[in-house]
Amino acid sequence: MYRKIRKYLPILNWARTYNRETLSGDLIAALIVTIMLIPQSLAYALLAGLPAEAGLYASIVPILLYALLGTSRALAVGPVAVISLLTAATLGNIAAQGTMGYAAAALTLAFLSGAILLAMGLFRLGFLANFLSHPVISGFITASGIIIAASQLKHILGITASGDNLPELLHGLWTHLGDINWITLILGAGATAFLFWVRKGMKPLLLARGLGARTADIATKAGPVAAVFVTTAVVWAFGLSEQGVRIVGAVPQALPPFTLPDFSLELVGALVVPALLISIIGFVESISVAQTLAAKKRQRIDPDQELIGLGAANLGAAFTGGFPVTGGFSRSVVNFDAGAETPAAGAFAAVGLAIAAVALTPLIYFLPQATLAATIIVAVLSLVDFSILKRSWSYSKADFTAVLATILLTLGLGVEVGVSAGVILSVFLHLYKTTRPHIAEVGLVRGSEHFRNIKRHEVETDPAIISLRIDESLYFANARFLEDYIYDRVAGETPVRDVVLMFSAVNEVDLSALESLEAINTRLKDMGVRLHLSEVKGPVMDRLRRQDFLSDLTGQVFLSQYDAFMALRRAAV
Amino acid sequence: MYRKIRKYLPILNWARTYNRETLSGDLIAALIVTIMLIPQSLAYALLAGLPAEAGLYASIVPILLYALLGTSRALAVGPVAVISLLTAATLGNIAAQGTMGYAAAALTLAFLSGAILLAMGLFRLGFLANFLSHPVISGFITASGIIIAASQLKHILGITASGDNLPELLHGLWTHLGDINWITLILGAGATAFLFWVRKGMKPLLLARGLGARTADIATKAGPVAAVFVTTAVVWAFGLSEQGVRIVGAVPQALPPFTLPDFSLELVGALVVPALLISIIGFVESISVAQTLAAKKRQRIDPDQELIGLGAANLGAAFTGGFPVTGGFSRSVVNFDAGAETPAAGAFAAVGLAIAAVALTPLIYFLPQATLAATIIVAVLSLVDFSILKRSWSYSKADFTAVLATILLTLGLGVEVGVSAGVILSVFLHLYKTTRPHIAEVGLVRGSEHFRNIKRHEVETDPAIISLRIDESLYFANARFLEDYIYDRVAGETPVRDVVLMFSAVNEVDLSALESLEAINTRLKDMGVRLHLSEVKGPVMDRLRRQDFLSDLTGQVFLSQYDAFMALRRAAV
Repeated sequence: MYRKIRKYLPILNWARTYNRETLSGDLIAALIVTIMLIPQSLAYALLAGLPAEAGLYASIVPILLYALLGTSRALAVGPVAVISLLTAATLGNIAAQGTMGYAAAALTLAFLSGAILLAMGLFRLGFLANFLSHPVISGFITASGIIIAASQLKHILGITASGDNLPELLHGLWTHLGDINWITLILGAGATAFLFWVRKGMKPLLLARGLGARTADIATKAGPVAAVFVTTAVVWAFGLSEQGVRIVGAVPQALPPFTLPDFSLELVGALVVPALLISIIGFVESISVAQTLAAKKRQRIDPDQELIGLGAANLGAAFTGGFPVTGGFSRSVVNFDAGAETPAAGAFAAVGLAIAAVALTPLIYFLPQATLAATIIVAVLSLVDFSILKRSWSYSKADFTAVLATILLTLGLGVEVGVSAGVILSVFLHLYKTTRPHIAEVGLVRGSEHFRNIKRHEVETDPAIISLRIDESLYFANARFLEDYIYDRVAGETPVRDVVLMFSAVNEVDLSALESLEAINTRLKDMGVRLHLSEVKGPVMDRLRRQDFLSDLTGQVFLSQYDAFMALRRAAV
Repeated sequence: MYRKIRKYLPILNWARTYNRETLSGDLIAALIVTIMLIPQSLAYALLAGLPAEAGLYASIVPILLYALLGTSRALAVGPVAVISLLTAATLGNIAAQGTMGYAAAALTLAFLSGAILLAMGLFRLGFLANFLSHPVISGFITASGIIIAASQLKHILGITASGDNLPELLHGLWTHLGDINWITLILGAGATAFLFWVRKGMKPLLLARGLGARTADIATKAGPVAAVFVTTAVVWAFGLSEQGVRIVGAVPQALPPFTLPDFSLELVGALVVPALLISIIGFVESISVAQTLAAKKRQRIDPDQELIGLGAANLGAAFTGGFPVTGGFSRSVVNFDAGAETPAAGAFAAVGLAIAAVALTPLIYFLPQATLAATIIVAVLSLVDFSILKRSWSYSKADFTAVLATILLTLGLGVEVGVSAGVILSVFLHLYKTTRPHIAEVGLVRGSEHFRNIKRHEVETDPAIISLRIDESLYFANARFLEDYIYDRVAGETPVRDVVLMFSAVNEVDLSALESLEAINTRLKDMGVRLHLSEVKGPVMDRLRRQDFLSDLTGQVFLSQYDAFMALRRAAV
């Protein structure tokens, strides 16, 4: 019983061994993460089309709930770029940004997403996420990064434009190019350049000046805070908000409010499919990060429990003025690098953000939106990586096709179409490959009991015996192919007396395939040829025994191909 | 060049050897088929919701085109029950039965279906039909048979009712039960009983009376003609059409007209998906029959050329007042049994039907619709066969689930939903099975070089070596499962020094799985455990060589598991 409770409340596993050392590690990590999260949370709220404070709210309660229920010790849960983009793309079809309906729909979306994740966890459906293949994920992340960066350019330029895909975004920017606010552009471009430099140039410089690696690291993470501070001060000092520089403006000085999602049937109906997509993509991003970090410390992640933790986090976001959240890559890595030992680090960061929400919000009144856009652009461009194209091209054309289609469709038609098409295409390509299985004619490798392809190895064969190794499970999609292949192979071969199907690679024989095997057996019998099987695996054999096939079989079932060959070969070859 | 032409014009293969003997066989078969086809064609037109003559038209030009282009020597192409039902279900959403729009839409549906089949043939997409598994087809045919029989009951009862699925049909019959026309019911029930008796009771009787088997067979096939003749004569003699008995009425006395399908974008858009479904189902029915018959005479069917032949037949139907057609089961079997030697038999039957269309149509003016309904009911009930449920239950729960879902959804929600759900479900269940592959720990079978599951066989193992046989291709949907499995298996096993993955059943390693293998290799390296592979197939090895994986591998790739075990085992075990 206690084991079961512990399974569903992982906090019980680490809380018992909590001590001063883990506490100090967690506290330092929390401080660094809080500093990084303040601008990032504001920025992702902007990306999702929501007021800045929603980003802070979405980072507080969700972190706490995940700390209670999640299995990763370093994962930091909150708004992330791709999910915020998906949120904006979804909500844009429901209501106009800035309206009450928009914010209410964000709560409903978070609620649905949480409910779906929770249900997937309770019904142990975590395997569904596996249908997003690595190449599809890479392509999707790269294309999303480009779309996100393009969507933020308007803030840097100080113009108004919108769109869900690259052509729309570029067209929008192009038509409004005359409205550029030059002061905004200078501020935004300056902040972007500064942040790029912080990422690429500052750390080596600090290290060269003799700073410790840890200090240099912390200084680097504080880059966005410095950009926020300086640009806010400049806008305030020179009254630039009256020159058309758009600012964050008044942010309520409060803890996360209690909010109730809108459960109207119409809204739920419109959001349930996007919520499913957001859940699965969020889960995949989160579990990938969690597993990478856990591997480094030999810890284990339980995917189904992760679903429960993320589900609870999203429900938390729904009831406290947030929007869909998940375990983010950059924040989790920072948390891990800064020395977080347990989920308590996340809880401390939540406290830090709560203090920020109450105490620091007046200070960001004059924060220019261009600065937030700059932090987003610099963050997401680091995700853009086209090397997957080269790698998949050299490895497998099917993988390459899936990744290219994902990238092009995401850029051209938006994130939802892109990722759905990627998944469907990779499933289809996988199935297609299995419809025309590789079938190798095998012979005995001299001096061994091992059988290999006659085209690739020096092997011994017998003209009266055809030994075929079928390199695929037999099921409805390839059952007919096997029939055709064997008829073609045997027809016209007069000396053939025995056909041995080597089943070492046949992991399943479904009913359609069984019927094909029965047809093959009957047809070969009419031709005076016996059919044998060899190396049939246990689970397949169990199933074959339940039907008449084995008793109707004209030949035998041999334990190994070697046994079959020895028993069937003529005395003199 | 000539070879290529012959490939696309199979008529060139058999026309050269045509002689008096094949001619006489073909002529007799054509006569029998013509007699059978007249009532059947009229009846299936009725089932499709079209005027009776459309059935004759759909049997003339399509047969001729198939004879020219198809590869089966005995297939008889024309209206069939399931396709006629699908046609009625589709067109019912477009226009009301009996309107001009309805007949025009039937032409468009035939045209689209023909174009799709032709395109599938030219692009060699015949493999798509394989995704209809045998159990799904069986379930679908059985459920369709029930729906078709139910849809014909209204003609037997002389009432009006409609519906696409069993609940609708039964509800329609129930609410109109008060309108029963008793004379129609007596005629219809009598015809049904007579036809059942012809099928089951008459042939043994004739044989017992000393008739030859062939003659008895022909007499049996003529049963529907006798029913048509007698009931028509009764209706005419007693003036029953004035008593409310619905009759076929005036049928134009003419050869098939030249018709042009309606190509309006709106109509094409509405029909393209149903046309795809009709094409695939029609193709599957046709190729199953063709292959069964070809197998009996050791002939070959070329699936892609079959698509071209059926595509041309449907285009022919579209331009000559027909509706979607395919190779029918019962008519083809009759054709074959009657001794058809070449597709010329089909051409002769077309001539016979053309003569009927010109000369016999006035004679069927008083033919009661109830008689046609009786022929349909008797024909389709022979297709109903629930034994697939028992067979699949005992063999595999996944197959059983697919067939049960197909039957229930077809009965409950109609043929289109039913068959689509069956296909999607069987693909999903197949994929689901591959996400949690069977992994067997193997050991050496004593006295051989063969390795089998330690749980099923007496085998020799070494505590320092874990040998795992992975019974599935490795791809994105199970890559993570493998990682988890190996980490779980190795963790805590202190004496383990080597892990050997036996790849005899791994037919593919995609990029996602390769990344998992790389992760496993790195993780095991950290634990001081070497990773080896054995029995990697040629195609998989070719691909692995293109990446760095093999050079990073801590262990070796062995030709056979036996080699691996011998090389790695300790001197003293």
